[in-house]
Amino acid sequence: MAQKPTLPQGTRDFNPLQVHRRKFILNTIEEVFKKYGFMPLETPAMENLNTLTGKYGDEGDQLLFKVLNSGNYLKNLTEYNNKGLLEESRDKTLLPSSDGSLNNLNAKTALPYISEKGLRYDLTVPFARYVVMNRNEITYPFKRYQMQPVWRADRPQQGRYREFWQCDADVIGSNSLLSEAEFLKIYDEVFTRLEIPVVIKINNRKLLSALAALTGSPEKFMDITIAIDKLDKIGESGVAEELKKCELNESQISQIIKFLSLAQSVAPLKELQQLFVGSTEGLQGCNELKKVFDLLMGLQLQNPVKIDVTLARGLSYYTGAIVEVQCTQGDFMASIGGGGRYDNLTGIFGLPDVSGVGISFGLDRIYLVMENLQKFPDYIKANHTKILFCYFDEPTQAFAFAATAKIREAGIAAEIYPDIVKKIGKQLEYANKLNIPFVGIVGSNEMESGKVVIKNLKEGTQEEMSIEKVIEKLKDNN
Amino acid sequence: MAQKPTLPQGTRDFNPLQVHRRKFILNTIEEVFKKYGFMPLETPAMENLNTLTGKYGDEGDQLLFKVLNSGNYLKNLTEYNNKGLLEESRDKTLLPSSDGSLNNLNAKTALPYISEKGLRYDLTVPFARYVVMNRNEITYPFKRYQMQPVWRADRPQQGRYREFWQCDADVIGSNSLLSEAEFLKIYDEVFTRLEIPVVIKINNRKLLSALAALTGSPEKFMDITIAIDKLDKIGESGVAEELKKCELNESQISQIIKFLSLAQSVAPLKELQQLFVGSTEGLQGCNELKKVFDLLMGLQLQNPVKIDVTLARGLSYYTGAIVEVQCTQGDFMASIGGGGRYDNLTGIFGLPDVSGVGISFGLDRIYLVMENLQKFPDYIKANHTKILFCYFDEPTQAFAFAATAKIREAGIAAEIYPDIVKKIGKQLEYANKLNIPFVGIVGSNEMESGKVVIKNLKEGTQEEMSIEKVIEKLKDNN
Repeated sequence: MAQKPTLPQGTRDFNPLQVHRRKFILNTIEEVFKKYGFMPLETPAMENLNTLTGKYGDEGDQLLFKVLNSGNYLKNLTEYNNKGLLEESRDKTLLPSSDGSLNNLNAKTALPYISEKGLRYDLTVPFARYVVMNRNEITYPFKRYQMQPVWRADRPQQGRYREFWQCDADVIGSNSLLSEAEFLKIYDEVFTRLEIPVVIKINNRKLLSALAALTGSPEKFMDITIAIDKLDKIGESGVAEELKKCELNESQISQIIKFLSLAQSVAPLKELQQLFVGSTEGLQGCNELKKVFDLLMGLQLQNPVKIDVTLARGLSYYTGAIVEVQCTQGDFMASIGGGGRYDNLTGIFGLPDVSGVGISFGLDRIYLVMENLQKFPDYIKANHTKILFCYFDEPTQAFAFAATAKIREAGIAAEIYPDIVKKIGKQLEYANKLNIPFVGIVGSNEMESGKVVIKNLKEGTQEEMSIEKVIEKLKDNN
Repeated sequence: MAQKPTLPQGTRDFNPLQVHRRKFILNTIEEVFKKYGFMPLETPAMENLNTLTGKYGDEGDQLLFKVLNSGNYLKNLTEYNNKGLLEESRDKTLLPSSDGSLNNLNAKTALPYISEKGLRYDLTVPFARYVVMNRNEITYPFKRYQMQPVWRADRPQQGRYREFWQCDADVIGSNSLLSEAEFLKIYDEVFTRLEIPVVIKINNRKLLSALAALTGSPEKFMDITIAIDKLDKIGESGVAEELKKCELNESQISQIIKFLSLAQSVAPLKELQQLFVGSTEGLQGCNELKKVFDLLMGLQLQNPVKIDVTLARGLSYYTGAIVEVQCTQGDFMASIGGGGRYDNLTGIFGLPDVSGVGISFGLDRIYLVMENLQKFPDYIKANHTKILFCYFDEPTQAFAFAATAKIREAGIAAEIYPDIVKKIGKQLEYANKLNIPFVGIVGSNEMESGKVVIKNLKEGTQEEMSIEKVIEKLKDNN
């Protein structure tokens, strides 16, 4: 017997119920994106490695899935060798180094010769690549959404997969803070529709930057932000400890801790304005936050929007607003969405000054939350068939087949048991297992009268009627 | 300036209009699948190479995209080397062979040590793998559909890509010919909805097999079928030529050519029955075709279903019905769908006796046909926004923002120009470029009266009205 097949680590099959539930989430997000004027974009699963590498930091480069060149993937390495170069740099390429082992350096050196493509790591870099390649055909501001899988060779763990979906929306070619306000409203609307209660947190990188300047150590910006970002997990004393390690002094640390206390403030904006009274950058951050809140004032949001001065999220990326969404019910604390403003999306590809702002929804995490909180509507099932037709022999099969076709013509999902089995038990078992609510039974008597017996499997009732009546009945039952 | 980015060979971006059009096709197919009781399945993009290799023939193995092991991908090769094996088989692995070149054999030998995963090549093998892994949870007959991209390292050419979508539906765990009839009806319904006139061709492998037996050279089955399959391209004389090359004699060849003439027959079934009067297998093939046609008699099909005795399609795979769909309008002759019955889907994974029948839709080819024949409905656009709100300063921006929100609350797609620009020209240009039919202009006068000026960009007319009236107007315009 052949080996039992398995799935690659960190990847999953989705069964019918799971597919329908995932589509419910995707469709909800997409409907809202479209209502706000966003347009869809799709990019290939594979990108050239020179598009991907160097965009996600060293760790990201490690986590890229690389695709071997097709055909004889050693061809380029052979050419390299034929030029005498392999001999020359023997230790650096594929050959054992002096200690007899093939080490990481070798793998890295050989890589460009055997692999030129990698799998999509996120949706942002492919979007930037698309914008640069199509810069002259695009109408700006360009509002695009993209919902596709991405792949990362991360160590798999609970809720973290090697293949997972991202749902991004971005506006590029505009500096307006109105877009930030719209995105907060989009978060509010999507999670309201999904019945997930959330808190939407917002921060501004300018505040974090101004804070570092305020302490007198602007060069410690990264250290300070990384420490602050851990507040949730390690508390104030933990943050203080971290800051001490980064060689900040007592007075600097107490300044930062005072800043953190604003996270609990009822009117953080006012206090922030006081704190940053002498800082142009700090006040600009405050003004940007204020503008967003002013715009939201005129709308009705179902979920709270809160300033969280500790919010950092991949800080090297964002230049203005930083946003994150957390579920407030149950004990699922991880972020289910996030985003922010960036000033230089396409600079990496030689097109400077393209400012943008965007958000992302994490499909897999949202799924997990909805499953835990039992938020999936009951009407989402593995199978949406309304009726199964059963029969006993060749003549009744032909009649039942035509009856099934008529039901389907009326737009109702219907099935007919494919095999001729004398006993009805097996056919009913199929309907029961798939939660099909009705069966239509065609015997020779029914066939003669042009009618079928309709059995309601849930209620255990049954009645005889014409196909036209069946259609009426099932339509009412939709 | 950075290098201008490119796309990997044979892959494509899809812009907003293309995505919406592709989704129109996918949704049409999916709706029909669901109406017929099929349930969705999704599998990962990556499969273990031992799941994929050996399933598509030697050529298929070559065309698989292989994914490099993550981290230090030379690790396993190092271990292999540390065991002294690399030294021993130096010529067979990564080192230059005696003539100084790294040849294909080396690439093949080294492959299992550096790559364990490959990209999905079709949807059938992953489906078989899923069935084997979940055999006890599945209710049979199992009717599943799957619509996902697949990847093949084929030489790219017109209409052939390295990333393309397949849309498959299969019924497994049943031998009933009723499924064949249902699939023909599904083809008819999908292409009717897409307004593509087609001919649905059907054949049965048993006829091809019986023909080989009839000639007295059953062992020449493959040769004969491959030659027959080329009739469309090389004509009868070409087929005769091919058969001669395969060492069939004059009398055998004339028997086969006579069989081919049935392709033009008005009543091929009757003639086939006469031809195969002494062949059990031949008559069984005829009976199977007859049963399918009998079942279809009770239904109304919009497109012709024809017996085509030359139809073979990946013949090593199918054991019964063979089906193919061709467009009959324009000069696009390639198949836009195909399928058939197979008797041993899961045998490759150690689960014997799972019979099934399935069909596939080629999304990319259907797209090409619809584009050429201009069959995409006009209402499919890049952008479905009904109205763009324009304004001139901060106060009117806030009013326009709230107005936009109200329109969206009514379920109508609406946008607001994000940036404050004094001149309306730029805002109107945005609406024109994106084919947004209406703009709502908010000046300070309008704001005071709580009204907006609605401009119909197509007709050039405009009128002032309340937001409530705008909603009514846009709803009527849907």
